[in-house]
Amino acid sequence: MYDVIIVGAGAAGLTAAIYTCRKKLKTAILSIDVGGQTNLTSHIENYPGTGPMHGIELMRRFQDEATGFGAELIMGKANKVEKIENSFRVGLANGEAYDCKALILAYGKVPKSLGIEGEEKFMGRGVSTCVTCDAPLFKKRDVAIIGGGNSAVEGALELATFAKKVYIIHRRDAFRADEITVGKLKQNQNIEIVINSVSLKINGEKNVESIDVENTITKEKRQIKIDGVFIEIGYVVDTSFVQHLVKVNEKKEIIVDERGNTSCPGIFSCGDITPVPFKQTVIAAGDGAKAALECYRWLTGGKGAVLDWTH
Amino acid sequence: MYDVIIVGAGAAGLTAAIYTCRKKLKTAILSIDVGGQTNLTSHIENYPGTGPMHGIELMRRFQDEATGFGAELIMGKANKVEKIENSFRVGLANGEAYDCKALILAYGKVPKSLGIEGEEKFMGRGVSTCVTCDAPLFKKRDVAIIGGGNSAVEGALELATFAKKVYIIHRRDAFRADEITVGKLKQNQNIEIVINSVSLKINGEKNVESIDVENTITKEKRQIKIDGVFIEIGYVVDTSFVQHLVKVNEKKEIIVDERGNTSCPGIFSCGDITPVPFKQTVIAAGDGAKAALECYRWLTGGKGAVLDWTH
Repeated sequence: MYDVIIVGAGAAGLTAAIYTCRKKLKTAILSIDVGGQTNLTSHIENYPGTGPMHGIELMRRFQDEATGFGAELIMGKANKVEKIENSFRVGLANGEAYDCKALILAYGKVPKSLGIEGEEKFMGRGVSTCVTCDAPLFKKRDVAIIGGGNSAVEGALELATFAKKVYIIHRRDAFRADEITVGKLKQNQNIEIVINSVSLKINGEKNVESIDVENTITKEKRQIKIDGVFIEIGYVVDTSFVQHLVKVNEKKEIIVDERGNTSCPGIFSCGDITPVPFKQTVIAAGDGAKAALECYRWLTGGKGAVLDWTH
Repeated sequence: MYDVIIVGAGAAGLTAAIYTCRKKLKTAILSIDVGGQTNLTSHIENYPGTGPMHGIELMRRFQDEATGFGAELIMGKANKVEKIENSFRVGLANGEAYDCKALILAYGKVPKSLGIEGEEKFMGRGVSTCVTCDAPLFKKRDVAIIGGGNSAVEGALELATFAKKVYIIHRRDAFRADEITVGKLKQNQNIEIVINSVSLKINGEKNVESIDVENTITKEKRQIKIDGVFIEIGYVVDTSFVQHLVKVNEKKEIIVDERGNTSCPGIFSCGDITPVPFKQTVIAAGDGAKAALECYRWLTGGKGAVLDWTH
């Protein structure tokens, strides 16, 4: 039984963990990754106090601090939350379950999935949702990237600096990215543009070996041999597995007050999964600290009020 | 004419400046100090991403980043705000005035003053409100510290490691600080405890030379020769000079929405001067970023909406 389980290990979740651990609460973090959206930024200049650095490096520091203060990091996708008497049980996709007295939901936005065969099976074994994180793994190999927005087009250009060949697969006939970026894409000899095409299936034995695509106009099918597939079709708020406990708004974001309280006593929330208007690392961190201190206050029956400076 | 004037240079104000400058807004910071309440903490371990350090060092980093991105730092005490057509005019105690299109109030709590003769005159010339900042200036000299709470008692102990002699002057007969700390105070040979005593006047020519105190029971007066006076009688929210423009709560804190909007369009607020419940550096920083981005959105007629990651 943990005092607190934090779902998500981005700026909000890791900061919350720093604060709950420093209040001597037994804390576990359940997450599919470490770093969240901050990882996607190669050069953060506006997180105060650290100087410019890669988002991944900044999040590694947050992680080291959270685990250094005693947080236990458990990798896995939370997909079930039950209220059992005075505690909560959080289930992971792999069947494991963990109990806690209080819960902080800080898992932010999650990458949209294509919903095709092989996608989930090969996740982490050729399928990735983070170019910045995983591009270096595909040096001199062939990869596909799926999507038509800025992040897909920029991702293709970044991948092309590592990979031998990059296929960018987009279901429409034009890219939504900036013209300048699309221009660079068209000029790059290592990139093959596959437009008007939908992905049908990712194939392989242990790892990704190929992807089946279909031209939406000619209905022609094609199998492209590749070693990796990057899915860059955007991010989405997924609160489907907690909506029986907490109120959400019309965008499915978890409604919180200014201290991170949700509509369910004992469940707190912070970061991109809430309606906070500005998506910034320092803002997520600040709101993570608020949710953690409010959680501490709740667990201690309001006696743990932290109404003054308590560095 | 500045685009934005930020009053206050603590974690909230300096972070706001980083954000307004990165949005290319011409920014001035008006402040009596740099660092605010964070300066008072000698060992911050829970600001994520930097590792442990002195609050003064952390705030110096914030300052370097804010000025590095173009913020102009003007030292002075803001004591007047007027709305003039579509702009605001901020007056300083020294008579200077600065104009801006938008205003961010982030000056937090200010040290309470004794209200005695010499106090204002010798501020910075022997009178200080920050032991941690200024104790090293009084090596092998004699100082007085005024107050009876934890920060005064701890301040006396800290001063005693530098000064030749420390007088702690308190108007009551017992200290409100922890017993352990008071015990240390009583055992310290360099500290003289002056209880049941009020300060009447700070004397000197160019710098502080002595302080007059009166025993509240015997009515006996005494002049104590010292080189410095530290005033540690707490902090207070002072919004008296902006209450004709912005709504405040019963504690005189400026009421804000979740984006830092006050009741007056064009005036934003963040940090300890708002009703934010938890006083933490990372929380003030996060709310500073929110207020700055909302200010930018307002200045650009709502077109500058920053609804996604914009590191």
